[in-house]
Amino acid sequence: MIDLKINGRIWLETSGGERFIGIGRMELLEHIQQSGSINLAAKAMNMSYKRAWDLVQSFNRLAEQPMVVTQTGGQKGGGATLTKEGLVYLKRYQELLARFNQFMAEESF
Amino acid sequence: MIDLKINGRIWLETSGGERFIGIGRMELLEHIQQSGSINLAAKAMNMSYKRAWDLVQSFNRLAEQPMVVTQTGGQKGGGATLTKEGLVYLKRYQELLARFNQFMAEESF
Repeated sequence: MIDLKINGRIWLETSGGERFIGIGRMELLEHIQQSGSINLAAKAMNMSYKRAWDLVQSFNRLAEQPMVVTQTGGQKGGGATLTKEGLVYLKRYQELLARFNQFMAEESF
Repeated sequence: MIDLKINGRIWLETSGGERFIGIGRMELLEHIQQSGSINLAAKAMNMSYKRAWDLVQSFNRLAEQPMVVTQTGGQKGGGATLTKEGLVYLKRYQELLARFNQFMAEESF
């Protein structure tokens, strides 16, 4: 047999099939959480600010409560924070992803 | 919480990261097995004959033994058959996919 490895992706979508969170959006939320800025998060991911902003709007539109809130002005010149709702979804996806990675690691081919 | 469902994809790739088999190529092999024809398999999948042929060549190049063999002419006017090697890889991916589907079904979100 040739040397093969398993790879895959897992994500959460709405009942209508709209993407909610996968590995890319998880990383965006993680970067926003770490940097406190959608702009810095976008740069860290080599993503346009518009794309990052649109994804944040998608999160806030689909979830029952906003997941990311932004402040304009102030001492820090604005910023972005994950809400409790955002942290809950982030953690649940991180845990799902960890179990999926475990599943793949335990599979032999 | 909003109503979310898990979705995902799983595939096998070479150690160099080249795609070997995923759900699309699995279905192509299944159609070749059922119809005995790369042409009919391509049609059943709304795939160009060239694309199906290229995928078959990819299988045969990557595996240690050919996975699909073709005959030209003869009573049936040619045809394609999965070899033992092809059937082994098809079965192993089908089983992996079944376990992955089971994993997703058992996850609650």
